[in-house]
Amino acid sequence: MQLTDLNTPALILDKSILDRNIALLAQRLEKYDCILRPHLKTCKSADIARRINPDLSMPVTVSTLHEAEYFLENGITDILYAVSIVPGKLKQVKHLQDKGAYMILLLDTVEAATLASTSALQLDAEFPCLVEVDCDGKRAGLKPEAPELIDVAKALTQLPGVQMKGVMTHCGGSYYCQGEEEMVVIAEQERTAITKAADRIQKAGFECPVVSMGSTPTVTFARSLDGVTEVRAGVYVFQDMVMQALGVCKTSDIALSVLSTVISHNSSENRILIDAGSLALSADPGKVNPNGDPHFGLVCHAEDCKPFDNLWVTSSNQEHGLISLTNTPYTPSDFPIGSQVRILPNHACITAAAYAEYQVVDGSDEITDRWQRCNRWG
Amino acid sequence: MQLTDLNTPALILDKSILDRNIALLAQRLEKYDCILRPHLKTCKSADIARRINPDLSMPVTVSTLHEAEYFLENGITDILYAVSIVPGKLKQVKHLQDKGAYMILLLDTVEAATLASTSALQLDAEFPCLVEVDCDGKRAGLKPEAPELIDVAKALTQLPGVQMKGVMTHCGGSYYCQGEEEMVVIAEQERTAITKAADRIQKAGFECPVVSMGSTPTVTFARSLDGVTEVRAGVYVFQDMVMQALGVCKTSDIALSVLSTVISHNSSENRILIDAGSLALSADPGKVNPNGDPHFGLVCHAEDCKPFDNLWVTSSNQEHGLISLTNTPYTPSDFPIGSQVRILPNHACITAAAYAEYQVVDGSDEITDRWQRCNRWG
Repeated sequence: MQLTDLNTPALILDKSILDRNIALLAQRLEKYDCILRPHLKTCKSADIARRINPDLSMPVTVSTLHEAEYFLENGITDILYAVSIVPGKLKQVKHLQDKGAYMILLLDTVEAATLASTSALQLDAEFPCLVEVDCDGKRAGLKPEAPELIDVAKALTQLPGVQMKGVMTHCGGSYYCQGEEEMVVIAEQERTAITKAADRIQKAGFECPVVSMGSTPTVTFARSLDGVTEVRAGVYVFQDMVMQALGVCKTSDIALSVLSTVISHNSSENRILIDAGSLALSADPGKVNPNGDPHFGLVCHAEDCKPFDNLWVTSSNQEHGLISLTNTPYTPSDFPIGSQVRILPNHACITAAAYAEYQVVDGSDEITDRWQRCNRWG
Repeated sequence: MQLTDLNTPALILDKSILDRNIALLAQRLEKYDCILRPHLKTCKSADIARRINPDLSMPVTVSTLHEAEYFLENGITDILYAVSIVPGKLKQVKHLQDKGAYMILLLDTVEAATLASTSALQLDAEFPCLVEVDCDGKRAGLKPEAPELIDVAKALTQLPGVQMKGVMTHCGGSYYCQGEEEMVVIAEQERTAITKAADRIQKAGFECPVVSMGSTPTVTFARSLDGVTEVRAGVYVFQDMVMQALGVCKTSDIALSVLSTVISHNSSENRILIDAGSLALSADPGKVNPNGDPHFGLVCHAEDCKPFDNLWVTSSNQEHGLISLTNTPYTPSDFPIGSQVRILPNHACITAAAYAEYQVVDGSDEITDRWQRCNRWG
């Protein structure tokens, strides 16, 4: 089975690049005394998790309890569910615990800690928790200097049914940086925030064994991880055009692409159309390209995934991708109707979620494997 | 089973509003001598198609061959696949024909017509085709005045294995209009374009029985459909915040919403967080809200889906939705952790694609049905 035999659109994963990305981060982290807890929300695949650790004996991060259940069934037991926990989900957490999972939960208010404690008593359960810390104002968590941080740590320490296990932050702000220098700075900002939070909690007399930070950019560019016990990263396994735009990777480091067929030429507007649109590529606008233009992916040759020259998916409808040929060296006849292209996506996590499986290649156009994903919320 | 019993995020469909939207368009079209060929790419559900026509004896439009197969299995036989056809998909089309489908295909180049003819001979098939016409420069098709239009009609008429069945246009440009007046104008522009194309083809001596136009805004606001034999519309069954922003509907006409749980408060940034993010709502930015701000959906009360006052999903991560309370009358305590909200989505077609099924309600908070969707590409 080869690329040309596939129905399009299809999600293609290059195993060689995947393995290289995984090895590169592992190598970067070798010098630090902290563990990697990969975020599997990107890949949602046990086959890919096995590329990180063949026997799956590793701690992981997930973004849904459906992922937690799926990875538990595949033998992964140490699972951080990195979205603030609410009472309605604790029955499902208890179910996972009963099946053998060590589930670590996240929260950032005394209200949530109290609710978790109440649920724990009802369910006859114990819930280990991290407190989310806000290092950049971009998502959730308490500021490292917030008085409430100590209140939450205290609640988790003293309330029955919950356990104070540490602190966690995610530096979404790293997605707004440009180039290595800025990412080094924001990685240090993230480290400073999370270690300060941990220090304050410990000085207030509460335990804080886990100090967890991460995002692919900050884990990649951190110059120090002093005081950090674990790092998290997700998209590093695939990389994508957002990571490329930030300077985290090169286009040749992107393992994921969408295989698509040229379906029409629109000569009057000087563009071609492909059968990958907003559903196949996602509607995520990502970052502008080097011309300063928004786009939905970089267009590449189907066989070897080498980029065409300055060729972008310029807009999209549900099942149509539009590729403008203006300011490129190409004419429509360079893209015969029925020929294939591959698109490097803006945001790999979101694009991949549209597909049930990966078509795995290994540097050639032959499909060597099909790897399933666990999408949705169960 | 009630809304509060559901795991979130979940896709909620209000059957009363759905039925009202369906009835309203049918009523608007009563005075015209043209048929409705609903575009089922929005709902991807036989249960919803049955609300349009209980015995499914209607012509339909689809955006994937997977939809075509699914609806055929449910008894719908007259199917327009409204994405330019390529040779690689014709074997699947032939398979659908063999199972009883009357498949109408779309193309807009002599190259595609020639390729379809060659495939038809190889497959021992006949492929009825429409020629796509470009009424607004926004997607595919030939301009009504293009010389190539006659070339394609001629090719479809004269080549073996293909049949010239008519012309089709889609006015994506209507999504850039504002208010009824502009939409009346663009609907007439669409009608003029497609009837001009049909006239030219007929005057050149070729048959052109089908004259098909459509988009929800233009079908809703057309003041004349003279010369048009069929109209297509998809999102009208649900409506969404893009349609509301254009002036096609009111928020109370939106049948689709995402049920979500409040998972955290972020007091320092004056926002709350919900468990519906880029995957649950889609990353489609839609239109700006009345404040001129981008958003990912309008926040409503869970029970009755009435909107809160000026409350929007202001940004999102994969599984986090962020709702700013700035410039609203609310404080975090109005949204207890664990409480539910419903979000009216920007683009219903894209949001719905993230879910395997609809949770159906009927004006109350009780789940009366579960309706499956046929997602992806088969």
